[in-house]
Order: sequence, then C-alpha cells, then structure tokens
Amino acid sequence: MISVLRLGHRPFRDKRITTHVALVARAFMADEIFIDTKDEELERTINSVCDRFGNSFSIKTGVNSYNLVKNWRGIIVHLTMYGADLRKTIPKIPRDKDILVVVGSEKVPPFFYEHADFNISIGNQPHSEVAALAIFLDRFTEGRWLDKKFDGKIIIHPSDKGKDATIKED
Amino acid sequence: MISVLRLGHRPFRDKRITTHVALVARAFMADEIFIDTKDEELERTINSVCDRFGNSFSIKTGVNSYNLVKNWRGIIVHLTMYGADLRKTIPKIPRDKDILVVVGSEKVPPFFYEHADFNISIGNQPHSEVAALAIFLDRFTEGRWLDKKFDGKIIIHPSDKGKDATIKED
Repeated sequence: MISVLRLGHRPFRDKRITTHVALVARAFMADEIFIDTKDEELERTINSVCDRFGNSFSIKTGVNSYNLVKNWRGIIVHLTMYGADLRKTIPKIPRDKDILVVVGSEKVPPFFYEHADFNISIGNQPHSEVAALAIFLDRFTEGRWLDKKFDGKIIIHPSDKGKDATIKED
Repeated sequence: MISVLRLGHRPFRDKRITTHVALVARAFMADEIFIDTKDEELERTINSVCDRFGNSFSIKTGVNSYNLVKNWRGIIVHLTMYGADLRKTIPKIPRDKDILVVVGSEKVPPFFYEHADFNISIGNQPHSEVAALAIFLDRFTEGRWLDKKFDGKIIIHPSDKGKDATIKED
C-alpha cells in the first residue's frame, strides 16, 4: 500500500497545487492521501474525480501529520531537494511494507527529516512537489501506474489526434 | 534545444501552477519557457531562481502561442491526457531537431492538437501539467537532467539527513 502525506497545505494559497499533488498520487498508483489542514472543498474535488474516473483512492484532510508519522508502521520516505540521490536510494526501499511518501511545501520542520527512513531528492534544484511525487512514484512503481485499470465511468482511449473517450451511463 | 510553451496562464488563479511548470522546465533540462499571458511577477520569480541556483534558462511571457506554434521550425509535442501512449511515442521523436513541448491548462483549443507532431499522454487519467512535463522530460532526456551542472551561487549537496548547501559569495 502506498500512502501520501502532504504537509503545509494552506487552503487558499495552495488549493490548486495540493489538488495536483492529490491527483498525481491517485494517477500514479498511491492508495490514499492525507492532508494536514482541513479542506472540505478539496475533498469534494478529489472525490468527484474518483467518482467519474474510477478507483478506490481516498483523501483525508485535517490529519495530525506529527502523530501520523510517529505512529506509522512501515517505511517513511520524505521527498526533499536536500535528500539523497533517488537513483541510489529508491532501490534500497523495502517493497514488502506499507510506504508513506511525505511531500512538503516551502519549509518542512526538522522532525520530518529525522523521522523519515529515507530523505530522497528528485534532483537538487528547486522545482515542484507535484513533479517530485510523480517522478518518485514513476520510478518506485517501475512505470506500472501506466497499466493500472481505473474502471471509471469515463474511459479515455489513447489517440494520436483529438479526443476519444467512452462515457458509461449510471 | 528544448523549449516549453505554457498555454492558458491566468496570472491570479494559475500563479503557483505556472511557477511550478517553469521551475520543472528549468530543472529537467529545458532551455526556455514561453507563457501566453504577460506576467512580470512570474518572470521576476523565475529569473531570481536562475540568479541564485544558476544556468541560462530563460522565460518570456506575453507570447502569441498561435504564432509561435505556426512558425516553429522543429518538432512540436503536445502533452494531453487524450494523447498516445508515451512509451510508444517518445522513441519516435527525432533527436536532431529543436523541440517545443506544449502544456495546457483545462481547455486546449483543437488548433494545438492539429499542429502538434505528437500528442502524447502521460497516462490517460486527469492529474497535472506539472507532473506531465516532468515525466515527459525525465523520459525524453533518459534521466540526464539529474547530472546537469547548474553552476549557481547555491549548490545543494545530496544528504541522507538534514540540509547541506554551499552558498558562494558574489
């Protein structure tokens, strides 16, 4: 099972970035996302995507991130531009345990560096927690997310030109 | 040379998403980004990162995206959830020509689907143009962005725990 924890969410300022983080988590094969700040609108947005596009991904907002990390029975991976090279580190992550992937915003308290089993950098340049999560999950799942079946009401068929989709009636 | 075109930027609503798109372009080895709407604050933000972290990446906002695409002498790749499978399509992209990677926001006009040499999907699920650009550039460059030297004033050294950075004086 793959879970994601998004730290430092501010509902007004971060609305769209956190939405992208959650949608990436879902599309790239995570099972659930935890958000530290309560945000019912964000929950509705993500649940609406799950309802239309399928799968059992879940979102929980207003989670105490310190307690979640302290009590996590499994592996904790923290993505940070200060972390160790992903090419050396991802192969070391045990595959037989639940994994919690922590992504921050601008300032992440030392607590999360200290409690992570792995602090991993997706490059050592500033870019984006959205991109960092996608690259991590792409490499951690060895691209298997691309073959995941979502079984939603809306199914998009790959196409060279234009849009090709099937929409199932309820 | 790799260029990125960001469509549909609305300075207030998309400020942070477009900033992430531009930072991903820079970190993942693109040379420049074009934004369709004028946004001087965004230019200052990105130029400030280049000034501190290095490299010659450039940003231009207020670009006519239709003219840019119409007059592009090279390959145009459009990233869209409706496009063809990236695993089949990326190997077909010529490597000896300048490439323009087009990323949209919610609605992309048919013009861009029609003028693209390749419409490529980074999975057929809704997620994020930030993630799509990162995954595309990671695979297109075969991970070479991870070894790119930026030669900035701030250099971050990969670390298992905590933060390790060198800051050069002017």
